[in-house]
Amino acid sequence: MAVRVDLNISLDGFATMTDQTPEHPFGLDWGRLTAACVATRTFRARVLHDTSGEGMTGVDDEYAQACFAEVGAEIMGAGMFGLHHARNDPDWWGWWGEEPPFRCPVFVLTHSPRPRLEMAGGTAFHFLSATPRQALDLALEAADGSDVRIGGGPTVVRDFLKAGLVDRLHVAILPILLGRGIRLWDDLRGLEAGYAVTSGVAPSGITHLTFSR
Amino acid sequence: MAVRVDLNISLDGFATMTDQTPEHPFGLDWGRLTAACVATRTFRARVLHDTSGEGMTGVDDEYAQACFAEVGAEIMGAGMFGLHHARNDPDWWGWWGEEPPFRCPVFVLTHSPRPRLEMAGGTAFHFLSATPRQALDLALEAADGSDVRIGGGPTVVRDFLKAGLVDRLHVAILPILLGRGIRLWDDLRGLEAGYAVTSGVAPSGITHLTFSR
Repeated sequence: MAVRVDLNISLDGFATMTDQTPEHPFGLDWGRLTAACVATRTFRARVLHDTSGEGMTGVDDEYAQACFAEVGAEIMGAGMFGLHHARNDPDWWGWWGEEPPFRCPVFVLTHSPRPRLEMAGGTAFHFLSATPRQALDLALEAADGSDVRIGGGPTVVRDFLKAGLVDRLHVAILPILLGRGIRLWDDLRGLEAGYAVTSGVAPSGITHLTFSR
Repeated sequence: MAVRVDLNISLDGFATMTDQTPEHPFGLDWGRLTAACVATRTFRARVLHDTSGEGMTGVDDEYAQACFAEVGAEIMGAGMFGLHHARNDPDWWGWWGEEPPFRCPVFVLTHSPRPRLEMAGGTAFHFLSATPRQALDLALEAADGSDVRIGGGPTVVRDFLKAGLVDRLHVAILPILLGRGIRLWDDLRGLEAGYAVTSGVAPSGITHLTFSR
């Protein structure tokens, strides 16, 4: 029953871009940050509903599998769900189509809650205005013994890290420099003190780094 | 005849601290950033004049060896040499004692040049006010076919990277978050485009990342 995070970041620490538009919800660089992840067999099957069984296997795919495994509830920020763009669209249901990959309750943190959304495949979006601790308590109850994943974006992840609520942080560090966006690592001095940190490099050139406690 | 850089940085990208004092010339966190490097057999022999032959061997030591190998001249900033603290001390000869580890001409970039300093062991400090390109031309001539190393600090390294003058950049990324200091990666968007990037993790937990062209 762990609280977990998985994020892709650039070498200079950027996890999300600030040039978000409806066409590029996470900015123009998002594709580069997530290309290796999107290419995995697990991502293609789970997120893109590609039933061909094609896609990369190996280290990056193992992390993609682990990312979804044993998650009983997810928490994400309003920006990740898309509410910053869809503030005036009561029918907005996120970026993930009719059958989102989460397959569990998803708690979306927003100062403007809206009615819950039941999607195909077991995903239900709940909108709430809450502190990290309050949201986590709800998510843990909904997860019923399984893990809770903090999906993002980086500002939300940082809030949970600063509150000491994350048990396992996995970052996939891409060997690229973006020079702009929202940094994951700001204001987290000494985070490593409460964790064991392990690292490994995948054939894709991605460094996978995991903080565990 | 390559232009090379080796730097230790934290996971959040800090290469030097801003809390420099005469007692802690590179700030209070410097020891943590460099501990694995300082523990190597090569560093102990070359910098600390420890003739016992003791010290760590393995991956980190191989990088320490490579750092000194075939360097015919070095370029560093005024801050790395200590001129920010020793501005009024005409006898300041750097942090490295009477026999510095460089054993070659060292070009110190400063807006307040002073007379050259001949040290034991082959190191000579030359002080000059010059652009990166001008300093590099002098250093290449002095290196006489060997490599030129840009020693630091991070601001000087960034200037050389932005000017497109660096052939090989090796960063040792420590799995720690410092949250303060001077970042190496600021304003280097797209740097990877001109380089092949390779990575590996040492048993110490350090990720060694090399940009080569």
